[in-house]
Amino acid sequence: MKANLIVSAVQQPCNADRQTNLDFSIAKIHEAAANNADLVVLPELHLGPYFCQNEDFNHFDLAQAIPGATTETLADVAKKLGIVIVSTIFEKRAPGLYHNTAVVFDKDGSIAGKYRKMHIPDDPGFYEKYYFTPGDIGFKPIETSIGKLGVLVCWDQWFPEAARLMALAGAEMLIYPTAIGWDAEDTHEEQQRQLDAWVTIQRAHAVANGIPVIACNRIGFEQAPDSDKGIRFWGNSFIAGPQGEIIARANASDIVLLNCGLDGARSEHVRRIWPYLRDRRIDSYGDLTKRFID
Amino acid sequence: MKANLIVSAVQQPCNADRQTNLDFSIAKIHEAAANNADLVVLPELHLGPYFCQNEDFNHFDLAQAIPGATTETLADVAKKLGIVIVSTIFEKRAPGLYHNTAVVFDKDGSIAGKYRKMHIPDDPGFYEKYYFTPGDIGFKPIETSIGKLGVLVCWDQWFPEAARLMALAGAEMLIYPTAIGWDAEDTHEEQQRQLDAWVTIQRAHAVANGIPVIACNRIGFEQAPDSDKGIRFWGNSFIAGPQGEIIARANASDIVLLNCGLDGARSEHVRRIWPYLRDRRIDSYGDLTKRFID
Repeated sequence: MKANLIVSAVQQPCNADRQTNLDFSIAKIHEAAANNADLVVLPELHLGPYFCQNEDFNHFDLAQAIPGATTETLADVAKKLGIVIVSTIFEKRAPGLYHNTAVVFDKDGSIAGKYRKMHIPDDPGFYEKYYFTPGDIGFKPIETSIGKLGVLVCWDQWFPEAARLMALAGAEMLIYPTAIGWDAEDTHEEQQRQLDAWVTIQRAHAVANGIPVIACNRIGFEQAPDSDKGIRFWGNSFIAGPQGEIIARANASDIVLLNCGLDGARSEHVRRIWPYLRDRRIDSYGDLTKRFID
Repeated sequence: MKANLIVSAVQQPCNADRQTNLDFSIAKIHEAAANNADLVVLPELHLGPYFCQNEDFNHFDLAQAIPGATTETLADVAKKLGIVIVSTIFEKRAPGLYHNTAVVFDKDGSIAGKYRKMHIPDDPGFYEKYYFTPGDIGFKPIETSIGKLGVLVCWDQWFPEAARLMALAGAEMLIYPTAIGWDAEDTHEEQQRQLDAWVTIQRAHAVANGIPVIACNRIGFEQAPDSDKGIRFWGNSFIAGPQGEIIARANASDIVLLNCGLDGARSEHVRRIWPYLRDRRIDSYGDLTKRFID
């Protein structure tokens, strides 16, 4: 990772039609490039409303191949602006086989790599296990011209194992495109606890691994198609440094282009003062591959 | 874990002589018992000054057997007051073989179990690798009359693996006796980042595992024996619930007896709404037992 990297995250609503959403994202990518950003992250599944609020087999029509129409468009933008882009797409890999997939475009417009979401949630309003086959690429950082990116997606952010495996494989930062929000039926206190837990655990991945974290969430209320419920996506996209310190953070409701510098030398320094990789008890971690220790 | 458990943590200085420190701790345990506490946690190595600021082979005289004089005293207190006590002792296991060991006394005065610190730090001013052989008991919760306690010690708190392994083995809460502080040569901003990282990563263990966390640190400045430096122990002991929410927290400098209720039903609830154990990708976690993925 170079000494001074400028990184951006686009906090935006994603509830319009595909072209409108994508045009909006591309306008923000231009803005990021005008700020000299090396990297820009879009929210999870930014092409449209969060379609996992119900189980509807027609929604599989939303999936597309990688490479495909959207990746071609974003590849052109990456190349034109000389910027690394992290996008997330509902991937149709084969008939009956779909993934929630992050795609990283390098500055030359090539696809530097992809990551298929490994941990798939399934809760009322977030029926992802219906749509997405769990990823089978594993936790492999994506090598780009600006460094090795540990790209993970949303629900992955709750699993310290995923962050650690990315760091062990050389990731120089962690990136979490996200679509997470509140259930209106929860109390204000519960909503705040959830948001705070979400920020806390991702900051902790920075701390545990001595590398920065970029979390990019959508905003806006999206009505469920088949009930009177819905999700208010809670924004709060943020960028944290290698001690988990917040460098930039958006609020819960505004369109925000986060933009800040990351200093590779800070990670090196933090990893010298807190040398966790030296002291991991790998001789005693074998049970981490167990479901439970009965 | 029972529905309403009252837990305490004793934030105290530990820089007097052994008897004074122990008498102080015991007075605080009486105070906790008067508050109907079921459990009280003492700071790491609470019997004396933090002796790892230099490497001096005379310090091995401070070690004692388990069971031994101190454990007999604390066992009596536990039995008399009907309270579970978590102590940490410099253990002499055999000639030339020493550990940093947490001992848990049950309400009947028996030793419910012990935990030998697994991750041993070694930094300027914290020369623990000289004194402590890394634990060989592993990450096993200690079964008591009030539930299964996931007792870990200080440096362990920076390793998500330790917390996870305790939770997988059935721990109903995580407990971190600690001795951590600031280097006066660091800037105020760096000191705050370190403190904030320490709180954040432990709260994140609560979040990741859906169980409460008790962190108990000492306070006070302790001069290094062989230099003009020293450590200002930063207190900030805290108790967090299963979403990482702070329930009670002390400041950086005061003697504080933290005391609050923990509701076992809250952990059950949180683990239903955030069912991480369901979704761990144990098929893909094998590399967690590697030092690095080269």
